[in-house]
Amino acid sequence: MRLSRSLLPTLKENPAEAQIVSHRLMLRAGLIRQTASGIYAWLPAGLKVLRNISQIVREEQDRVGAQEVLMPTLQSADLWKRSGRYDAYGPEMLRIQDRHKRELLYGPTNEEMITDLFGQTVKSYKDLPQVLYHIQWKFRDEMRPRFGVMRGREFLMKDAYSFDLDYDSAVATYRRMLLAYLRTFQRLGVRAVPMRADTGPIGGELSHEFLILAPTGESGVFYDAALEELDWLDEPVDTNSPVALEAFFNRVTTPYAATDEMHDEAGWQAVPEERRREGRGVEVGHIFYFGDKYTRSMEVSVSGPDGNQLYPEMGSYGIGVSRLAGAIIEACHDDNGIIWPDAVAPFRAVILNLKNGDELCDAICERIYNTNEEAFLYDDRAERAGVKFADADLMGHPWQIVVGPRGAKGGKVELKRRATGERHEMSVDDALALVLAG
Amino acid sequence: MRLSRSLLPTLKENPAEAQIVSHRLMLRAGLIRQTASGIYAWLPAGLKVLRNISQIVREEQDRVGAQEVLMPTLQSADLWKRSGRYDAYGPEMLRIQDRHKRELLYGPTNEEMITDLFGQTVKSYKDLPQVLYHIQWKFRDEMRPRFGVMRGREFLMKDAYSFDLDYDSAVATYRRMLLAYLRTFQRLGVRAVPMRADTGPIGGELSHEFLILAPTGESGVFYDAALEELDWLDEPVDTNSPVALEAFFNRVTTPYAATDEMHDEAGWQAVPEERRREGRGVEVGHIFYFGDKYTRSMEVSVSGPDGNQLYPEMGSYGIGVSRLAGAIIEACHDDNGIIWPDAVAPFRAVILNLKNGDELCDAICERIYNTNEEAFLYDDRAERAGVKFADADLMGHPWQIVVGPRGAKGGKVELKRRATGERHEMSVDDALALVLAG
Repeated sequence: MRLSRSLLPTLKENPAEAQIVSHRLMLRAGLIRQTASGIYAWLPAGLKVLRNISQIVREEQDRVGAQEVLMPTLQSADLWKRSGRYDAYGPEMLRIQDRHKRELLYGPTNEEMITDLFGQTVKSYKDLPQVLYHIQWKFRDEMRPRFGVMRGREFLMKDAYSFDLDYDSAVATYRRMLLAYLRTFQRLGVRAVPMRADTGPIGGELSHEFLILAPTGESGVFYDAALEELDWLDEPVDTNSPVALEAFFNRVTTPYAATDEMHDEAGWQAVPEERRREGRGVEVGHIFYFGDKYTRSMEVSVSGPDGNQLYPEMGSYGIGVSRLAGAIIEACHDDNGIIWPDAVAPFRAVILNLKNGDELCDAICERIYNTNEEAFLYDDRAERAGVKFADADLMGHPWQIVVGPRGAKGGKVELKRRATGERHEMSVDDALALVLAG
Repeated sequence: MRLSRSLLPTLKENPAEAQIVSHRLMLRAGLIRQTASGIYAWLPAGLKVLRNISQIVREEQDRVGAQEVLMPTLQSADLWKRSGRYDAYGPEMLRIQDRHKRELLYGPTNEEMITDLFGQTVKSYKDLPQVLYHIQWKFRDEMRPRFGVMRGREFLMKDAYSFDLDYDSAVATYRRMLLAYLRTFQRLGVRAVPMRADTGPIGGELSHEFLILAPTGESGVFYDAALEELDWLDEPVDTNSPVALEAFFNRVTTPYAATDEMHDEAGWQAVPEERRREGRGVEVGHIFYFGDKYTRSMEVSVSGPDGNQLYPEMGSYGIGVSRLAGAIIEACHDDNGIIWPDAVAPFRAVILNLKNGDELCDAICERIYNTNEEAFLYDDRAERAGVKFADADLMGHPWQIVVGPRGAKGGKVELKRRATGERHEMSVDDALALVLAG
């Protein structure tokens, strides 16, 4: 993308309405603009981030056999009356009347709708297990929306729902999803620690929240540093084997990890002192087993092996996709701006032309840009070098390719890595090879 | 995808609620399910169709320099009060009150919001022209939703908006977009004829609807067969040249083409009889120039070359993405089911295993499936051959790879082309080469 032709409105000043760093930086880097309280438009670079996150989430869901569907944003109140949640749900639910005075609502979550869809389409135990997910906009009418997309009202979420014939099968599904989540966050370039969460009346141990460590997080977190050393991308788990899944589950859940809500001082003291990690975290995911709560209340059953009707066991699995854009920035920034993890960055590199109109500089920049117009943002504006450097750091591209008249004479550019600040002079081809390699 | 593990619920019987063929076939082929009046969930195969359409639309928008953004579904009523449309818009607008009694609405279109966003971010004539688009769900509270996704209430639309400094520049932008539309529909595998539409108080000739010919279309259409011979994929138009754009525009708009609303008997009689084409059409796109209607009413201006404030000239450009899924089926089906154009099909081919459990048949099917799990639907169900053939025709995959025990012994499969019914026996490799080539 050519910056001179792009809608990438960076701001020099901190916007007064933004209280936390990710909100400030998302506004300043031209990723989002607010259109109503707690409701945002995503500008071109912000949309690329949202799409990069969505795609990684999608690939890891598909990898464990989940099927993508797309449910609508508006739901009939009747569905929620069947489960009994319509009256129970508080003022966060946005209730709507259509022209025929029928009650609708903007979906804050989709347990009811997916259970009904499942009931319409799946009739036999032979078709289980099924895991269905979608990535769709939801709405929660927060009392005081704030912190930008971290606590917005209209937000993008991936929510998956599983249907299993019995508890053992549901446990295996839950563990597969836990693995998918760990892989997802690792690929996104952030550390999200799974913490056991309250299971309420359901009981058991099948509820985990995933928290990204960030000083502005809403929860206190306590965990064993052993959790920092696990790698789920290079250590394959055989997801068809219940034994392998159990071993995996134990490895993840044995080390101490808790939010302040679930914190237990005795367990904490049992962690060797040098391995205790304490801080704050932002919740970006939650997985939860809840048995036949919805299938039973909504009377959705399948025929079992013996001909009797059975209520499938369900779980739900959420990832806050738009929230992640903010949470990643909370975890990845410095005083100068965003430091995007490579997998999430809107562009792999920015090309900084330090002397627009200089024949040699222009030619080198164009040559680099033309190798891959999707991967590069070309800063071709008639601005001072200082402005371009500052905007590049602010926007947080993983690499900066600096093209100045002196180096250009020798066919050289300077390549800067945003995360480390390291700079090296090198040939154009060497810079391209490094940047496009990942 | 393995059919035995997929949520692809085909129906043998025609659903009573569906009045037109695309609605019947979308339900029967397991693409969608209704969740409330005029509101649909997209099942896995349906979502693939929706995404294939969106991606082609996106690529052609990007190709003419439009930038993708994503605006929210809910809008503040204040925006619409600024343009004066809030009270004027009829009961199709879904009006909502949030918990603080603030007025919101579910966006039926985005002129107001994009004009406001533009005003927040673009300040100078130097940053023009700008073309911004998004692909987002919208809502129109139809009195009587019907015909499935063809006239649903919650629908997916691509809407683009252009901002130009003066009329000449706006005309060039309009013509570029006309080209993008012709290329888009051609790539989708359907013929959508551009027809001059009413420009209302704006006047001029810069308003065109695009109609797909289908017997169930809502409008009568009349056009010159010369329009059927034009090819926009292999005949490049230099979109940087106003002269080339004008020549292109004249070529498209000179042959007679009108809906019954704009039909003019004298013009029609001037078309040689053998070239007169008469039928019905479904509107799938509309492009429209409307000058400074919104920039002026909403007081959104940029600084001009001489320092004076100027109101940019705007146009808007819509494509009904979810409607297209239905419209394509209206144009592409036979008595047995859907006949997907290759570019839109959820799968390139279905693999029909005629004898599940037969070692040779299973091995050949698995081998084909493993070459590309995304491209193939593998019908591995324990069903009779007749059921598999009927479902394959119903779902409308462009190719069917039939694997039976007799052919399998000689390493042969039968390849059927859905559109023509042609079948040929050939080696697995030859079949794969044909199917994966396109």
